Amino acid sequence: MNNKISKSVIRRLPRYYRFLCELEEKEVDRVSSGKLAQIMRTTASQVRQDLNCFGGFGHQGYGYPVTTLKNEIINILGLNNHYRAILIGAGHIGTAIASHMKLDKLGFDMVGIFDNNTAILGSKINMLEIRDVNSLKEFCSNTKVDVAFLCTPKEAAKDTVKKLYELGIKNFWNFTHYDIQGDYPDVKVENVHLSDMLMTLCYSMNEDADE
Amino acid sequence: MNNKISKSVIRRLPRYYRFLCELEEKEVDRVSSGKLAQIMRTTASQVRQDLNCFGGFGHQGYGYPVTTLKNEIINILGLNNHYRAILIGAGHIGTAIASHMKLDKLGFDMVGIFDNNTAILGSKINMLEIRDVNSLKEFCSNTKVDVAFLCTPKEAAKDTVKKLYELGIKNFWNFTHYDIQGDYPDVKVENVHLSDMLMTLCYSMNEDADE
Repeated sequence: MNNKISKSVIRRLPRYYRFLCELEEKEVDRVSSGKLAQIMRTTASQVRQDLNCFGGFGHQGYGYPVTTLKNEIINILGLNNHYRAILIGAGHIGTAIASHMKLDKLGFDMVGIFDNNTAILGSKINMLEIRDVNSLKEFCSNTKVDVAFLCTPKEAAKDTVKKLYELGIKNFWNFTHYDIQGDYPDVKVENVHLSDMLMTLCYSMNEDADE
Repeated sequence: MNNKISKSVIRRLPRYYRFLCELEEKEVDRVSSGKLAQIMRTTASQVRQDLNCFGGFGHQGYGYPVTTLKNEIINILGLNNHYRAILIGAGHIGTAIASHMKLDKLGFDMVGIFDNNTAILGSKINMLEIRDVNSLKEFCSNTKVDVAFLCTPKEAAKDTVKKLYELGIKNFWNFTHYDIQGDYPDVKVENVHLSDMLMTLCYSMNEDADE
């Protein structure tokens, strides 16, 4: 079924999910496409079109059942799969991810944290000990790992990915500028290029000044 | 001129910029559209189309002059404008941004860092003292601020943005889930929704499993 849903709809689903969670917390039972459109800052027709992609359980005049819709999105995104994740690089970004993000609500369980900085090895983030990156092989032979969150400096990224790939890890959340898919076309990667986003903001501000 | 360039081309420019910087570091003078396409993982025709948007200074058979092209992108994105930025929230994400990103290369100068945690006030990140968020008004009356990097917890975001907006700040790099443009349609915002990206990765992994 997933194959029928376009990439652009998929990219919007996390936002729907977040808003539906908020509505559920406020004990809202049903929500109209108009209200969802307002929250998503799009049109009611776009919302109806998006949600029709995965079963038309909104009824004209009644709106969408919040919990049912939320659960459907959980299903489609696979947030209940609880993929086993390791973090490589326990610097500021890595620590922020491991300590502040509600990973379990997002489909992931953090099972290991690795760094090469001997000064922090053994200390804990969210109850997980920071392990020596040299113990990766041993760790992976005992523990199934589905995905690596890559938060190393760029210089370390290439070697680290090679090691992880050889250990069978084919999914990456990549915070470095190393182009993983350039070397490994068969992996799944979600890149977070903060500097690219910042440059895009710079453009918007510049564009404004030009007007 | 900027108005002629589509949003999707703009979104790709930071990547071109990064790769051109790398080529320049390797003292490469000229690059063909084919080579750029390979690095960008797109087609040579897409590259030519993108770069034609802002002046056709690639010559058939000669490729593009790396430095000229890089400088042109710097111009278009406005990376030389050196917008004055403040950081609100010196937690892990905020600290990572203020200490590790080469902000000046990306169009921004960090001029102030603010937090409400008295335990860290006065300590320094990259030579900048962490100031009390309550001193924002005073700070902004003495220092021109173009943009705020918002790295507070979600609960604090709404009040913080209200304060900043009233101080005349209309540009935001937003790491929180607070929907700034929902309340202030006239501001420029670049959102970094890490959890949305992670859910998208979850989907890709799930999709794979379904095949």
